[in-house]
Amino acid sequence: MSLSGRITDIHVHDVRFPTSLALDGSDAMNADPDYSAAYVVLETDRTDGLAGHGLTFTIGRGNDIVAAAIASLRPLVIGLSLADFAATPGATWKHLTGDSQLRWLGPEKGVIHLATAAVVNALWDLWAKAVDKPLWKLLVDLSPAQIVEMVDWRYLTDALTPDEALAMLEKLAPTRATREAEILARGYPAYTTSAGWLGYEDEKIRRLCAEGIEQGFTHFKLKVGADRADDLRRARVMRDAIGPDRAMMIDANQRWDVDVAIDWVTSLAECRPLWIEEPTSPDDILGHAAIARGVRPLGIGVATGEHCQNRVMFKQLLQADAIDFCQIDSCRLAGVNEVVAVLLLAAKFNTPVCPHAGGVGLCEYVQHESIFDYICVSGSLDGRITEFVDHLHEHFVDPCVVRDGHYVAPTAPGTNITLKPESLTTHTFPDGQVWRDLRANAPLRS
Amino acid sequence: MSLSGRITDIHVHDVRFPTSLALDGSDAMNADPDYSAAYVVLETDRTDGLAGHGLTFTIGRGNDIVAAAIASLRPLVIGLSLADFAATPGATWKHLTGDSQLRWLGPEKGVIHLATAAVVNALWDLWAKAVDKPLWKLLVDLSPAQIVEMVDWRYLTDALTPDEALAMLEKLAPTRATREAEILARGYPAYTTSAGWLGYEDEKIRRLCAEGIEQGFTHFKLKVGADRADDLRRARVMRDAIGPDRAMMIDANQRWDVDVAIDWVTSLAECRPLWIEEPTSPDDILGHAAIARGVRPLGIGVATGEHCQNRVMFKQLLQADAIDFCQIDSCRLAGVNEVVAVLLLAAKFNTPVCPHAGGVGLCEYVQHESIFDYICVSGSLDGRITEFVDHLHEHFVDPCVVRDGHYVAPTAPGTNITLKPESLTTHTFPDGQVWRDLRANAPLRS
Repeated sequence: MSLSGRITDIHVHDVRFPTSLALDGSDAMNADPDYSAAYVVLETDRTDGLAGHGLTFTIGRGNDIVAAAIASLRPLVIGLSLADFAATPGATWKHLTGDSQLRWLGPEKGVIHLATAAVVNALWDLWAKAVDKPLWKLLVDLSPAQIVEMVDWRYLTDALTPDEALAMLEKLAPTRATREAEILARGYPAYTTSAGWLGYEDEKIRRLCAEGIEQGFTHFKLKVGADRADDLRRARVMRDAIGPDRAMMIDANQRWDVDVAIDWVTSLAECRPLWIEEPTSPDDILGHAAIARGVRPLGIGVATGEHCQNRVMFKQLLQADAIDFCQIDSCRLAGVNEVVAVLLLAAKFNTPVCPHAGGVGLCEYVQHESIFDYICVSGSLDGRITEFVDHLHEHFVDPCVVRDGHYVAPTAPGTNITLKPESLTTHTFPDGQVWRDLRANAPLRS
Repeated sequence: MSLSGRITDIHVHDVRFPTSLALDGSDAMNADPDYSAAYVVLETDRTDGLAGHGLTFTIGRGNDIVAAAIASLRPLVIGLSLADFAATPGATWKHLTGDSQLRWLGPEKGVIHLATAAVVNALWDLWAKAVDKPLWKLLVDLSPAQIVEMVDWRYLTDALTPDEALAMLEKLAPTRATREAEILARGYPAYTTSAGWLGYEDEKIRRLCAEGIEQGFTHFKLKVGADRADDLRRARVMRDAIGPDRAMMIDANQRWDVDVAIDWVTSLAECRPLWIEEPTSPDDILGHAAIARGVRPLGIGVATGEHCQNRVMFKQLLQADAIDFCQIDSCRLAGVNEVVAVLLLAAKFNTPVCPHAGGVGLCEYVQHESIFDYICVSGSLDGRITEFVDHLHEHFVDPCVVRDGHYVAPTAPGTNITLKPESLTTHTFPDGQVWRDLRANAPLRS
């Protein structure tokens, strides 16, 4: 396999799935998400026609804005050489995030950063396909020095220097093979969020927990934050359904102010949640630290990250001892490079990384990142568990596979993110068949 | 004047000024800005044809993405009643920032928040014009309870509660008239950034400082951060030009990591800067706190805010004692409502607010906000000074006026942000005459 070729074109697709029709994905802040992807195809001039696929996740309206932002990155992408990217992926990342005018829109946050994620992830997909490896294996085969180069160290050095990172990676390098064999044999531990959406009846929670246990899951997540009495009842239902020895996590999706968070979580402590996720604003580092101080004495940890905008925010969450579980998001961070930066930071602070997934495509991405984390960065599975939500996988050519509560290490080359052509066509917004049909049936639906 | 009418249409314009042709606006991170505005006109069904005008500022590429984001807010804006907005501007703000799908793009940061700012500011413009008052006077005539309602208190109450804010405002209410008279007589103190752009030769700095002194300015800003020896030379030039008794501020535009910032600023301490502005990532609250601890012993304060994404971040900068000067931005924060939230927080923490301006339209906005701050919120001018940059004002129907180093209190109804029709037409990107001419002269210019 060769690293020949340059990017000759970038196609952007606004793809949406009408998930709001059911209450899958409902939580205290996101009442009616239509899981969506701004989906990128990077074409090359390679003779084998190889293309890179990447996406970033949104929940519906606004997916077109992200698509427009991806299009604005076009001049930075066209002409990139795959060999150059593979030689210095960190330099390419800085190039893509460094446009002197576009950076005003962030810098490195929100729409423009989500857009960058799709492009960066597509470049990694292309590289992995070109060398015929799944992304995790491509990453695992990089040297410590190559991994360090991948990261933009600007603004990180007060917490972690490139030299420290190199030493951490080198320390684990000799034992990578052992952990790789272990992952190939057992997979990476997963938990399920499918059982605990806010819109579900108690009986549905009970049934889905039983199914989850049957499928080998040991950790179950419950959405909370809309009504306190309701939360306690539902938490008791879940605790009863999963038994005393399995773990329950609760997720408030940014609902509370600091004092309310501590108080509310305290009232659910009898159900022994492992963590409270997104208790308050994702921007509130000091608030998370205060909440952590308030609920740790109850044996409850704080988790956040799916809305954490970049590595500088994660750095501070770690420095401030504000989180017990670090939930990187493969698309809110600007792709693989920045995810690796946060994995390194978390390892420095001995904080387990438990990636956010669900949505569409996020499970496909994070399985690679968790496996890489274990083999090369953290070297540990203690307290590590990666989110899994069982929907929309059927739209991918090579969907992730979860078996006996574990992500099975992917074997297909790339990042598992290539959409089936028919899914892409029928779900393109607003003119795909799925959306045309919905409008025909309900003319006022946007 | 009446508050009748509803919003019937929203027009969005991508307006850009080719400022990169000169080196006006050049700094260590923004090498070649084309100052731009995503400009909004809210049409109404009023018989007098009154419209609301608002903008958000960018520096060129990406202005179209913000314009697209503004268009996506359309369903939230059309049909709004001016009377309802005037009755509960806080409720309207929550409505505009609360779309359950769009919030994924932030929440409350980056492109979607910049877009919200333009719409919110246009609503205030409409209200002010409808009651025939400049924005500052409309704000000053609101009761303490109305001002408290304007703010979205979510995520703020661990630092400041609505009741505390109400008490602060009520305490100053009886003396508002005195301060209003003072401002009408003397204006609000301004400083100039026009003298110290990074691209300027020493002689130009010297000449512009002399002109600034002539114009009554007492505070001068110098851009730093690209080259240390160069910075020291330029700082000495400026200190020499302004004499020992005037103030110099230095601005690094996010250039440094924490340790480098402390070290670099220390090497410029002999020139006695009043503050170091944006020493590091705008997201790095803990980093700013560390830098503040490092440079305060030298008599140098820390200032930041032009890239501070929302009230939650400002809250933490204040809680962490990370800043000595709070630089709100009238368009990066989501308009007047969120600016008022930060003014209240800053007053609680006794931190002077020194707004960021320059760009295009920002001076027009912040003059209102600073005057309101003094009359109703801070009650003090100690350590307060508002940025002024003397360019692009000629494009506004009612530009701000700075005289003897002070913003003259505006008298025109509204927010002074209405663009002259010919400026709007000729600078519309990419098809306005100015841009057509540039392309004709330099075909490769984007």
